[in-house]
Amino acid sequence: MNKPSIPKGTRDFGPAEMAKRNYIFNTIREVYALHGYWQIETPAMENLPTLMGKYGEEGDKLLYKILDSGDFRQGVDWQEPSLGKLAARLCEKGLRYDLTVPFARYVVQHRDELQLPFKRYQIQPVWRADRPQKGRYREFYQCDADVVGSSSLLNEVELVQMIDEVFTRFGIRVCIKLNNRKILAGLAEHVGRPDKIIEITVAIDKLDKIGLDGVISELRQAGLGCEAIDRLSPVFEIKGDTLERLSAIRELLSDNDTALLGITEAEFVLRQAQALGLNNRLELDLTLARGLNYYTGCIFEVKALDMAIGSITGGGRYDNLTGIFGLPGLSGVGISFGAERIYDVLNQLDLYPAAVGSSVQLLFINFGEAEVGRCMELASCVRKAGIACEVYPDPAKMKKQMSYANQSGVPFVALLGESELAAGTVTLKNMLTGEQDVVPQADLISFLK
Amino acid sequence: MNKPSIPKGTRDFGPAEMAKRNYIFNTIREVYALHGYWQIETPAMENLPTLMGKYGEEGDKLLYKILDSGDFRQGVDWQEPSLGKLAARLCEKGLRYDLTVPFARYVVQHRDELQLPFKRYQIQPVWRADRPQKGRYREFYQCDADVVGSSSLLNEVELVQMIDEVFTRFGIRVCIKLNNRKILAGLAEHVGRPDKIIEITVAIDKLDKIGLDGVISELRQAGLGCEAIDRLSPVFEIKGDTLERLSAIRELLSDNDTALLGITEAEFVLRQAQALGLNNRLELDLTLARGLNYYTGCIFEVKALDMAIGSITGGGRYDNLTGIFGLPGLSGVGISFGAERIYDVLNQLDLYPAAVGSSVQLLFINFGEAEVGRCMELASCVRKAGIACEVYPDPAKMKKQMSYANQSGVPFVALLGESELAAGTVTLKNMLTGEQDVVPQADLISFLK
Repeated sequence: MNKPSIPKGTRDFGPAEMAKRNYIFNTIREVYALHGYWQIETPAMENLPTLMGKYGEEGDKLLYKILDSGDFRQGVDWQEPSLGKLAARLCEKGLRYDLTVPFARYVVQHRDELQLPFKRYQIQPVWRADRPQKGRYREFYQCDADVVGSSSLLNEVELVQMIDEVFTRFGIRVCIKLNNRKILAGLAEHVGRPDKIIEITVAIDKLDKIGLDGVISELRQAGLGCEAIDRLSPVFEIKGDTLERLSAIRELLSDNDTALLGITEAEFVLRQAQALGLNNRLELDLTLARGLNYYTGCIFEVKALDMAIGSITGGGRYDNLTGIFGLPGLSGVGISFGAERIYDVLNQLDLYPAAVGSSVQLLFINFGEAEVGRCMELASCVRKAGIACEVYPDPAKMKKQMSYANQSGVPFVALLGESELAAGTVTLKNMLTGEQDVVPQADLISFLK
Repeated sequence: MNKPSIPKGTRDFGPAEMAKRNYIFNTIREVYALHGYWQIETPAMENLPTLMGKYGEEGDKLLYKILDSGDFRQGVDWQEPSLGKLAARLCEKGLRYDLTVPFARYVVQHRDELQLPFKRYQIQPVWRADRPQKGRYREFYQCDADVVGSSSLLNEVELVQMIDEVFTRFGIRVCIKLNNRKILAGLAEHVGRPDKIIEITVAIDKLDKIGLDGVISELRQAGLGCEAIDRLSPVFEIKGDTLERLSAIRELLSDNDTALLGITEAEFVLRQAQALGLNNRLELDLTLARGLNYYTGCIFEVKALDMAIGSITGGGRYDNLTGIFGLPGLSGVGISFGAERIYDVLNQLDLYPAAVGSSVQLLFINFGEAEVGRCMELASCVRKAGIACEVYPDPAKMKKQMSYANQSGVPFVALLGESELAAGTVTLKNMLTGEQDVVPQADLISFLK
């Protein structure tokens, strides 16, 4: 028989990885809860019409579809030339592709039970039939928090605080980048090419890499005329810190109401968040083009300062999340921590707290039937005091038991043989120092605490 | 557009349900960890050959299969008469059906990294294309703990302790029932029909319901002759408490080594567990026929005493879990808490702790831009003290904000209007009693603690 395996792009998480992952999820969860976000969960499977058409044409192909149970052949035309249509006949359900669309579906489906504004968080796996590669998986967790039903910018401020708090707890130094789609839209209007918002943003982003000439040639290729490029050029001259740049762009786009609104929004969030005291840098980044096809206001992105890796958190405001499900007019804003990348950053920078992974404090060595009964009793007492411990279940060779203790990283081993049993003591071996102490059984718990 | 919906047999979990579910999972998780079990997670999707043939013919049909991404039509013979074979051509992956088979696959796949005995727990959803009905879902969580690589009965004792501890923490009074497959096998051998082990066990189970005559007629229908029934009959006479019954059955089956071994095992677990002090009753139940097709030793089942509902936890020992994946000779024993039923029991008996569900302690009312900045500052301080709080994001009408506070169950509301801002105070309203206190802003945290 072949050694069993798991599907490409999926992973098993063993004890050591789980401890680290739980540390990440619990930290994010705590910060979400501290700010009054409520957890929800939605099913792994959604009806396909809920998912189809929400992630673009490419997204539709990357959805995992579930073969109907029962006789899936019924009424299926095998000659159907469209693969997508055939799949839709064979499958009425698909696996969750992200947490945003199921959340929108949830809000609309439960609109009568929900109190607005509704602040929810959700930490669940999603599935994408993407080509697996380093750091990209077919099953991975997302950790989203969103507020729907409030257009107040205080939500944006709070989300920035939450990002700051999470990375402070992780000990990862980050830069939180802020942009506003309205500024970019206004800029594109200002140069007379509102249709080229993405191309313009991408070109600005490349300034550092390819220089002004390179950017101008890219813009030409993208179909911008001389006049448009001339009107855009002053943007490339903008320098200084965040507030200086905001002020320069405000002057430059003073004729455009959309841009001015975006600038005011960005400035509000920047000033308020900074006034509340952030541990990490928050700065305006006009090149941030994240999710331009659905974000309508503020856009967030987080970069680690001490490791070259893509964005490790993102988010923004979308004014019509639930419109796709027939409930227009609900504004939402949210963030999503990239748990998988955060895992890599914590690993590479060696930032996991020492306590992550080892919860068992004590292993009782099994000397045989005569002594192990007393070990089981003591183990019960130790656990009643809230201390995790184990009794080695078999009277195996000492070497095997000690190797088990070593590998599981338990700090103390309890030796309770014939003489200890008679004396009412237990010999405690510190696995780190090798030191041994003989302790009365009655003092075991206070010794461990 | 139709109101969106989710697939039949699946559920959304809103904030209130999530709080209760987390209470259940966290309680189980804590007890598992306290006993030195390590958490693992396996992918939702497994390769179909890993799953097929492991749950019987019916199980194969209930597996959710995932349509291959890419051109699933390639090489498929649509005339294939077998639905199962056709599905296997269209799909190479399926969704996890339980946690046991993926665990066995995990152990074999990672055999070189694992330290035996390996104590693992796993809390993840599973999927079954079953007909949905009250209390039966197509997506539901399992909460398993297993030890592999140790045949010591101390593992069984520890699992009984863990069951006892979990239900003690829940406040659910239960009876833990214990049986041993070897006793049943020995009994079937004793009456000369080892092939009828299940029929015999089921018949014994019906004694209370259909009486001795009914049972005998069932056994006849099952194909047992007069002699076999005569040899079985003394079992129906066995009375008394657990130890008395064990002693009676030991005498009755004294000619059968298999049965005697099973009786010794059961007695060891019963005596040891009881000596360690259980809060719940542990008793022998010879009618326990759970999982007879794979359990080889002890069998566990838990019944709630104060509510009529099926088994809420089960488990047992299986001597060859990993054999199906080519690694024979590893003994395992485990339990599985029925989280979905436990949820119903806690609900019906109203046993959830009062604190479940409300984590936010304080909501700041938003009086407008002049005051809300100070509220945001105070909220940051309150959170730094570990207390969850919210600032209402919009300067909405007081009635709307108070109704939000009411519905989210927050115990305190903070009013910080013009006069409080000037005086450096905050008016705290107790939402339960309606009492109001004016507190200096500097004393806010000590007031809440």
